[in-house]
Amino acid sequence: MTNQGKINIKDLSIINKISSMAVIGASRRRDFYFLRTHAENFKGKIYAVHPTIKEIPRFDNDCIYPSLKDIPDKIDYVFITVPSSNILQIIDECIEKGVKLASVFSAGFSDLGTEQGRKLEEEMLRRANNKLRIIGPNGMGMTYPKKGICWRAKFPSEPGNVGFIGQSGGVSNLVVYKGSEMGITYSKVFSFGNGNDVDFVDLLYFLSNDPETDIILCYLEGINNGRGPDLIKVLKQNNKPIVVLKAGKSEGASIAAKTHTAAITGEYRVWKSIFNKYNIIEVNSVEQLLYAAKIIDAYGLFKMENIAVLSISGGYGVVLVDQIENEGMEVPPFSPGLQSQLDQMLVAVGTSPKNPLDFAAQFRNLDLVKNTIELVLKDKNIDGLIMDLPSWYLNNSFSLGRTPIVDKKTINLMSLGHTYKKPLIPIIQRTNSPEYREKVIQVLNEEKIPCFNEPLQFLSLLPKISKCAQNKNSA
Amino acid sequence: MTNQGKINIKDLSIINKISSMAVIGASRRRDFYFLRTHAENFKGKIYAVHPTIKEIPRFDNDCIYPSLKDIPDKIDYVFITVPSSNILQIIDECIEKGVKLASVFSAGFSDLGTEQGRKLEEEMLRRANNKLRIIGPNGMGMTYPKKGICWRAKFPSEPGNVGFIGQSGGVSNLVVYKGSEMGITYSKVFSFGNGNDVDFVDLLYFLSNDPETDIILCYLEGINNGRGPDLIKVLKQNNKPIVVLKAGKSEGASIAAKTHTAAITGEYRVWKSIFNKYNIIEVNSVEQLLYAAKIIDAYGLFKMENIAVLSISGGYGVVLVDQIENEGMEVPPFSPGLQSQLDQMLVAVGTSPKNPLDFAAQFRNLDLVKNTIELVLKDKNIDGLIMDLPSWYLNNSFSLGRTPIVDKKTINLMSLGHTYKKPLIPIIQRTNSPEYREKVIQVLNEEKIPCFNEPLQFLSLLPKISKCAQNKNSA
Repeated sequence: MTNQGKINIKDLSIINKISSMAVIGASRRRDFYFLRTHAENFKGKIYAVHPTIKEIPRFDNDCIYPSLKDIPDKIDYVFITVPSSNILQIIDECIEKGVKLASVFSAGFSDLGTEQGRKLEEEMLRRANNKLRIIGPNGMGMTYPKKGICWRAKFPSEPGNVGFIGQSGGVSNLVVYKGSEMGITYSKVFSFGNGNDVDFVDLLYFLSNDPETDIILCYLEGINNGRGPDLIKVLKQNNKPIVVLKAGKSEGASIAAKTHTAAITGEYRVWKSIFNKYNIIEVNSVEQLLYAAKIIDAYGLFKMENIAVLSISGGYGVVLVDQIENEGMEVPPFSPGLQSQLDQMLVAVGTSPKNPLDFAAQFRNLDLVKNTIELVLKDKNIDGLIMDLPSWYLNNSFSLGRTPIVDKKTINLMSLGHTYKKPLIPIIQRTNSPEYREKVIQVLNEEKIPCFNEPLQFLSLLPKISKCAQNKNSA
Repeated sequence: MTNQGKINIKDLSIINKISSMAVIGASRRRDFYFLRTHAENFKGKIYAVHPTIKEIPRFDNDCIYPSLKDIPDKIDYVFITVPSSNILQIIDECIEKGVKLASVFSAGFSDLGTEQGRKLEEEMLRRANNKLRIIGPNGMGMTYPKKGICWRAKFPSEPGNVGFIGQSGGVSNLVVYKGSEMGITYSKVFSFGNGNDVDFVDLLYFLSNDPETDIILCYLEGINNGRGPDLIKVLKQNNKPIVVLKAGKSEGASIAAKTHTAAITGEYRVWKSIFNKYNIIEVNSVEQLLYAAKIIDAYGLFKMENIAVLSISGGYGVVLVDQIENEGMEVPPFSPGLQSQLDQMLVAVGTSPKNPLDFAAQFRNLDLVKNTIELVLKDKNIDGLIMDLPSWYLNNSFSLGRTPIVDKKTINLMSLGHTYKKPLIPIIQRTNSPEYREKVIQVLNEEKIPCFNEPLQFLSLLPKISKCAQNKNSA
């Protein structure tokens, strides 16, 4: 992949071929934390490298070596967590051994903000000599569930199609933990820290061309000096949905970001025009990165301008319409044909067959709900449905007892969005207990039905995704 | 309270004196739903009125009477759920009996949108003759936990200080259920439906002068024709914080609201100027009504312009700063004195003593966290603290086993906002499971520590509350 056409990109093709790895610098004091997170998951051969330790509880002690060069097998990937003072020697050994990729967790380089730290980082890169690619230093490195590469305990092991790039280890951890709660599964997650070798642009190119990645999420502080033209080239060749959270937009945050990873955050208005031009979906919070991934993963990119609303409460329906129209979408009257069909179906006192639909107690009539949703989603003037799901019915009437948590019929109902290839997004807030609600959400997540606790969480994302879809179509 | 000064207000002083009530029209088919919701909770003497039924399971059958007039005691309050065709006779009986207040759940009046329905409603009011006050028809009526007046099963029974007024039964139900999940307790909740007798203006005046109510929440569709001048008078005399969700702001919603309760939503810009002039906090979702109540209940009205941020992740801190500054608040550098104290305290690698504070793994040092929070909250240049709470520590390190869910030390830490009378708001999203997080939030709610799952939920409320506080101070 090096110098593909005119793009100056580092070759990371080794990633998908990793079959062996070593953790260098396991520490007894922390119970060999990073060795364990990898050893418990890694699908290939894994070694521990430590100059003195010869025994590690619950680890194959035949796989502990004092140095890389003593390992009999080839090593594709290393995770390095030695003090920065030892780094140069380790890098030399990696080169000697022919290792292709390293994640360097160790801090104490340019992140110190000192001349000495900056020089150590430069020297490290000089010795790596473009033969060893380095993710880091001062980053968490790489998580790659399919291969069982995993920098943290209790990270999800299920492989997926969402890729994430971020400087910050904390944000990356949150993205993985919270994302997996939401049913998001990852292809690769990168936390690249100081990013002086492998950087944002390299990783974006990699994910953009990675067959295992469908959606790219980015937490972006800034890019390295001089990488602007390459970033543009990467964006030009990209065909996948990219969702970005730009950090350091405000003055206070920009200063804080500088302290954090010495990143150059750049002028926000320049970034804004790049996001616009290259059809990138920009969000404003870590959580919304994940919500966007969840929605796109379920329904792809879609038009979302004319919305149908289905509520159990006329009042809540009215509030939803306000919120939807406030985001620039519309809740239009149904077309005359559809309206006359609904008028005949929804006749009970207290209900309303108009958009927003008010089902009131008729929500208990599952067939009626199903027929209504089908009619609405079939209509060419309606792009999608937002639904105030009465989840107290889910465990009172629909399910017998507490098993299953959500009745199969209800899941089928919620899956009609997939049938008609239009977003159907339930809001689940009416319930007997918050714990039960979380379980319902989990079940629906598994069925790729994106559902939310409140409209505020996702409404503003819909017009952004819609705009992205329409720009792609017209491109 | 009638005609207090120049305000044309209906006398609702009976509410706080209710000691006896009757439910009129209990239905066997629904297992006497409304009779049970009241009978299970009501603190005074309760009767059932039904022309034919003489036995009701799990109810004192000596308290069932065929008609109001047969009841030997006086009756202060009735809940009416008879078909609209029987309403006039029931109203006549109420007048004869000297009942002062009725909630009319029955629909089938002006809500039908027919001349007949409108006339029936008028005739009902004519017969009530200003002697019997009517909440409704087509509303849920009144919930008053202190007296055990309660229109719905599983409503919370704990009395509180938050009053709510809304047309919509669905929104009112949601407000009570979701609010009580959040630790909000209610003085009175009104769902007044068509509101042709007791209306929004009357209820607002009542809550504004009710000694049991400190905070007033409103879901407002609109007010009755001609009530504008009275509303203004009520707002002029009001001293309590009012939080309002205006429904029907957008065109689509305005039409929907009309269908729903035949309300006149009015021009939004007129409402907007009223909210501004009378220092009313306007929010955009049902959830935010509750979040605002939660925050004001914990900290009163407060100034919130200069914010300190404390995070476990530098990256997440940067994002928080962006989000806070995006809402018009500032995350300023600490004053030199405070900064030099923090510089000496927070020295571990990977932490940052500047605003936003990055504690990284030092979050495990509870004394350090406590000292830092105290220093920051003592500083006169800082109005409050927003904190990215690492809740995985809560059950790993801080607590032994799972009991208690949140360690006492952590609760003390989170309570420092009360000590220093400045808002301290934790965000809890880092956790091992969503169910556990909900439990942590519940524990903190009980300690009146408002906490949230994500910044998006509450950040936009802070400048609104702050503006309200400052307007009150300068008034």
